[in-house]
Amino acid sequence: MSDRPSEDDLIARYFAPLAGPGGLGLRDDAATLIPPPDCDLVLTVDALVAGVHFFADDPPDAIAQKALRVNLSDLAAKGAAPLGFLLTLALPGDWRPEWLESFARALGEDARRYACPLLGGDTVSTPGPLSLTITAVGSVPTGRMAPRTGARAGDLIYVSGAIGDAALGLALRLNPALATHLDEDEREYLAQRYLAPQPRLALSPALLAHASGAMDVSDGLVGDLAKMLRVSGVSAVVDVWRAPLSDAGARLVSADGSLFETALTGGDDYEILATVPPSHAASFERAAHECGVDVTRIGEVVAGEAPPMFRDVRGAPVHFRRGSFSHF
Amino acid sequence: MSDRPSEDDLIARYFAPLAGPGGLGLRDDAATLIPPPDCDLVLTVDALVAGVHFFADDPPDAIAQKALRVNLSDLAAKGAAPLGFLLTLALPGDWRPEWLESFARALGEDARRYACPLLGGDTVSTPGPLSLTITAVGSVPTGRMAPRTGARAGDLIYVSGAIGDAALGLALRLNPALATHLDEDEREYLAQRYLAPQPRLALSPALLAHASGAMDVSDGLVGDLAKMLRVSGVSAVVDVWRAPLSDAGARLVSADGSLFETALTGGDDYEILATVPPSHAASFERAAHECGVDVTRIGEVVAGEAPPMFRDVRGAPVHFRRGSFSHF
Repeated sequence: MSDRPSEDDLIARYFAPLAGPGGLGLRDDAATLIPPPDCDLVLTVDALVAGVHFFADDPPDAIAQKALRVNLSDLAAKGAAPLGFLLTLALPGDWRPEWLESFARALGEDARRYACPLLGGDTVSTPGPLSLTITAVGSVPTGRMAPRTGARAGDLIYVSGAIGDAALGLALRLNPALATHLDEDEREYLAQRYLAPQPRLALSPALLAHASGAMDVSDGLVGDLAKMLRVSGVSAVVDVWRAPLSDAGARLVSADGSLFETALTGGDDYEILATVPPSHAASFERAAHECGVDVTRIGEVVAGEAPPMFRDVRGAPVHFRRGSFSHF
Repeated sequence: MSDRPSEDDLIARYFAPLAGPGGLGLRDDAATLIPPPDCDLVLTVDALVAGVHFFADDPPDAIAQKALRVNLSDLAAKGAAPLGFLLTLALPGDWRPEWLESFARALGEDARRYACPLLGGDTVSTPGPLSLTITAVGSVPTGRMAPRTGARAGDLIYVSGAIGDAALGLALRLNPALATHLDEDEREYLAQRYLAPQPRLALSPALLAHASGAMDVSDGLVGDLAKMLRVSGVSAVVDVWRAPLSDAGARLVSADGSLFETALTGGDDYEILATVPPSHAASFERAAHECGVDVTRIGEVVAGEAPPMFRDVRGAPVHFRRGSFSHF
């Protein structure tokens, strides 16, 4: 191992340039964070394992983006603004400097893009696959975090952006024959939606002002909505035909109807699911529009503890074979 | 996988009982933390991989203790009081419920013992070895964190507790023949010092009041001191014969002199290395004594950027073949 850089060399070379002021140049045992006044902190952590959460041969910049952005998506869902993150990287013995350089560069670009500096971390070796864990810290005004448990009967259910793109991008990757239904731009769009989530941080102020409850959609709309309703002690009626599909997503689903279920139950959307009291609906839609994020109303929360009822355009119930995608 | 519990089942069953109020029953995307008034937050993260940082067949309660306590040791070194932690657990396919039950029980006991509740986490599967990452959050009075970079020429160098026990416990495990030099209690003591670090959180107030700089000794006293001096831009003269050994450690080192180097350069001490201005030395020693933590003066910081000079009882220089232990 003597010709390999030490952990300290590696930190100094690749990661210290990404550190914010609280990261103390990554030379200390720990990072400091001065909490903003009148705020609660929001903390979230996600682990990603090569071969489970991403393909081992995905480009290193895509892996870096995904690792940070899935955490930023959790912050966005709580209405939080990012303050910084910690990274642990477990590297297999055959890691290459070029890989780490691209990874660190992309991570640094995202840290700047989302104003979320690197605060600290840990780098270890592993006999297993490349794994990384990111802990992100954000803040919300005191007592204002948008909770997953806040859905109430009568609330309207909204989802941001488009649903299913990432799952369809993955389907396209696993079954290249599907590509014949799409043009080059559409293929690229869906592939990117799988590789590089777009955390909806812009929506945070609208959620704080208007949402009764929110979560991010990471394991499929159908399953995640069911989770949110369960922990809120309510049920819902959802018009599945209202679920927003992108142009590329809609084209693929028209070509192969079975992919509609993939779109609604596949993972990795990283869109926001929010419940909004009817009295706030117009303001929420306006605020989201002003943030530049599309939101679509897909249903309504109803009393009861039954699983949500999904229905088609004629009002007939729709059943999904698979409730949600599980990375576990 | 259908006969296996889902990630949600597993969280509800094993980990939700460990959650503090900020953990929201582990049912949300994120945890909240209300920062204490007039405090800075201190954040630290450590990843542990089976076969690298612990033996895969170590008892699950020892793995849980080690994972949390190495982070608490980082907080202790900064003078911080724990507020809570996040856990990510990457489980291989063959995990067993009994294992997870013992792991979670021990983690819960430590969370209570150190007043450091579980705030959140992530559980994933891995084709690799069991890996876990803990992010711990603590607090210090605003602007008062004990920095690694604070050593100044003239400061006295202190170390807490006893040095080398864990490395000798590991040596004993790898070379059982060494056990003949020790009685049963001594063997058990050293084995436990390797398995279950004792974070020196009790020393935090003394560090905040008196230390110019501090770090925890995780990669061996010799190498970690060199790191601390390097980032502080100073050097030191250290009397290696003053390094505090436990009775069991001293007995093993007397039986096999080569183990002295193991004791001073091996890892996993999780003791505190602190630099203290001479004007504070008596107060620091008294404060440490009142906290119930032994501290031993082992040398003095001197000007210059040379590596620290280690000397024996006659003043002759001592060289170590290996600067420090690296988990990387």
